[in-house]
Amino acid sequence: MYADLEDTELEALKRDLEHDYAEIKRRDLTLNMARGKPSSAQLDLSMPMLTCVHALEDCYSEDGVDCRNYGVLDGLPEAKRLLAPLLDEEDIDNIIVGGNSSLTLMHDQIARMYLFGTLGSKPWSDYENVKWLCPVPGYDRHFAITEEFGMELIPVPCDEHGPDMDVVESLVADDESVKGIWCVPKYSNPAGTTYSDEVVERLARMHCAAEDFRIFWDNAYCVHHLHFDDGGEQDHLLDIGIACAEAETPDRYIKFCSTSKVTFPGAGISAMAASPDNISEMKQHLRIGTIGYDKLNQMRHVIFLKDADGIKEHMAAHARILKPKFELVQKKLSDALDEVGGCTWSNPNGGYFVSFDGPEGTARRIVELARNAGVVLTGAGATWPHGVDPHDSNIRIAPTLPPIDELSNALDVFTLCVKLAYVELLTGDIERPELSD
Amino acid sequence: MYADLEDTELEALKRDLEHDYAEIKRRDLTLNMARGKPSSAQLDLSMPMLTCVHALEDCYSEDGVDCRNYGVLDGLPEAKRLLAPLLDEEDIDNIIVGGNSSLTLMHDQIARMYLFGTLGSKPWSDYENVKWLCPVPGYDRHFAITEEFGMELIPVPCDEHGPDMDVVESLVADDESVKGIWCVPKYSNPAGTTYSDEVVERLARMHCAAEDFRIFWDNAYCVHHLHFDDGGEQDHLLDIGIACAEAETPDRYIKFCSTSKVTFPGAGISAMAASPDNISEMKQHLRIGTIGYDKLNQMRHVIFLKDADGIKEHMAAHARILKPKFELVQKKLSDALDEVGGCTWSNPNGGYFVSFDGPEGTARRIVELARNAGVVLTGAGATWPHGVDPHDSNIRIAPTLPPIDELSNALDVFTLCVKLAYVELLTGDIERPELSD
Repeated sequence: MYADLEDTELEALKRDLEHDYAEIKRRDLTLNMARGKPSSAQLDLSMPMLTCVHALEDCYSEDGVDCRNYGVLDGLPEAKRLLAPLLDEEDIDNIIVGGNSSLTLMHDQIARMYLFGTLGSKPWSDYENVKWLCPVPGYDRHFAITEEFGMELIPVPCDEHGPDMDVVESLVADDESVKGIWCVPKYSNPAGTTYSDEVVERLARMHCAAEDFRIFWDNAYCVHHLHFDDGGEQDHLLDIGIACAEAETPDRYIKFCSTSKVTFPGAGISAMAASPDNISEMKQHLRIGTIGYDKLNQMRHVIFLKDADGIKEHMAAHARILKPKFELVQKKLSDALDEVGGCTWSNPNGGYFVSFDGPEGTARRIVELARNAGVVLTGAGATWPHGVDPHDSNIRIAPTLPPIDELSNALDVFTLCVKLAYVELLTGDIERPELSD
Repeated sequence: MYADLEDTELEALKRDLEHDYAEIKRRDLTLNMARGKPSSAQLDLSMPMLTCVHALEDCYSEDGVDCRNYGVLDGLPEAKRLLAPLLDEEDIDNIIVGGNSSLTLMHDQIARMYLFGTLGSKPWSDYENVKWLCPVPGYDRHFAITEEFGMELIPVPCDEHGPDMDVVESLVADDESVKGIWCVPKYSNPAGTTYSDEVVERLARMHCAAEDFRIFWDNAYCVHHLHFDDGGEQDHLLDIGIACAEAETPDRYIKFCSTSKVTFPGAGISAMAASPDNISEMKQHLRIGTIGYDKLNQMRHVIFLKDADGIKEHMAAHARILKPKFELVQKKLSDALDEVGGCTWSNPNGGYFVSFDGPEGTARRIVELARNAGVVLTGAGATWPHGVDPHDSNIRIAPTLPPIDELSNALDVFTLCVKLAYVELLTGDIERPELSD
């Protein structure tokens, strides 16, 4: 363990690591572990979707709508049925199928809260200060949305069961300006955590001072397991809709999903599910800004993916590509860092990320060292609101995009940078952050 | 002319018309001239677009982007070039390619004005009252957007050159709360008018009390001529971008277009063009709410339509289907109503509509009579803000959707209803509206 080493040993170690690092820099690598993008091999799985709507008969929905023409605000019934299992939603009347981005659905929902309020509440733009709960580590694009609207973002610590509910409950109980929480409840971005039943139930039944408090339930990785019929575990998530119905808080949640990491990111379809009152209000607003979303792309998804079994089969094909990459991350990190100490990382059963925590005060330095050696990582701090990780420890590893040989090289660079940064910390070359309480 | 008839002649005429109307009702028609939708025959023209992106090579943009994956906020360069002529925009850096709906681009732009202001101006939500100019007759979905935000909508009369610029100039000169104007500057919805150069130039150079006054330039029918190489006229529109550049009001306009009535409504692509400062600000906001729009659909359009010549050829094929319908409208209206008097209608060189004005006080009655006889028309008043036409005279005729034999039947019903309503007006069965000044 590095922490146990004497100063002279550390100095010798540093010289060795610096030598190795200089070697690597000479290789002029260009590797990327930054974004949660599927690889080309994964995208190839969906190529038949490009041409599965080709004849006139493919363009007609089951209720006779010509999908080539205007109309149908909230989605084709068969598209709603296709996405219902991704939303854990039994009643397709509670579903709206959107365009190519669930992020847009979330952004626009918050915009509507600001402009119009919801279900009789006053517009959030009427508040001096709106607060939002951000479980950390979390998704930078979520944080960016709430940041754009000028909200005060409150980090909430997480453990292996999800957000710390004692903290959440105390924050929402008396403060009417706390209006919502970001949740990636299954195989979370980046920690890979799936919320426990208790966390979901407490979110549903906690007392909120704000009647218009909303849980943004971004179930982006709902069917994105790594294990299908291989003996590995699949996480199970309690449906927030059922939990809220039981807690008599039926309007508290809005569920989101998309096929971005099922078929084609940017050319998939999105959807949301909520209570009848929420859905009805959403439709009243949505119809002002659009005549309807792309129904031909809805039909492509329906014809290509077919149903829940079709989705399962397709996701199993993704998993066959992804599993070796996630296994490689575990092996490389373990081989290189178990003996180093000071580092922890997640080992998820699904999703797109591994969350890595280095010694406090090393994350920015690790990312900098890696970048200078040709390996792009997600920016240190990206997993925290406003991009500032007070511990300067968390790094999101995204192993999905690079081919496995490139991933292997990138991980070797990464672990070397972790070691070097740690030694620099221990020898006083870089400083631990001063934490406010 | 009905207006010249004696009371006894009118009563006899009414009996005859009522008899004919009763006959028609017995036919149990279901015809629709309500919405500006392309017909099936027109949609068939774009069927090859469904499969033109099928191989891996079709999925890569000219700059090497895999269009199946995330990325590219503002559109592929080749998609920008394709749409540049529809936007009268020479510099593709001033273009953003959007999703399937230009209406959404307009709605969201206004939402951003309310939430954030623009180029340093204060958010419109900070105003007690925001006013917006609505040339009439106009497009109901435009009016609905500004209505949703609670604006005061001010109707502006139009003639064959576009909006009455004396009125516009006087409204914008001193009132900082007048923030914008809806314009469908070419083959306008519904009158088919194309703004004269003088109107465009005056819009560009008029003094506006509001620095953040914006012209929403919805060039929805930019290439939607009825005449291609048939000796008929094509209207020419002066580019508002050039006019504003010359008038040194470069940030005043935002241009919008889409392929909704070029390829598939609801499965097309949209775009906007504006000054570099406006575009830069838009991108800063857009990137928060989306990673990017559907690039595969952009590629479909690029491969299918190719370029300006390809678009021209494609629009000529549309025109071959549309022209006989528009000619039939003129013939049927003229044959039936020239001798009746009191009615006027437009005869456009392009677009999707004929604007009909019956005698004041008859429009709602005409629409009601037609509906009861099985012919659905756009609601009377739809062409005015808040759906209220103070003259109760304007009806938008949308001849594009029905096959020509159905259109012919629908027009026969329509003209009969016009006659009957007019006679009812002259005999005192229905009343002229009381106009405020």
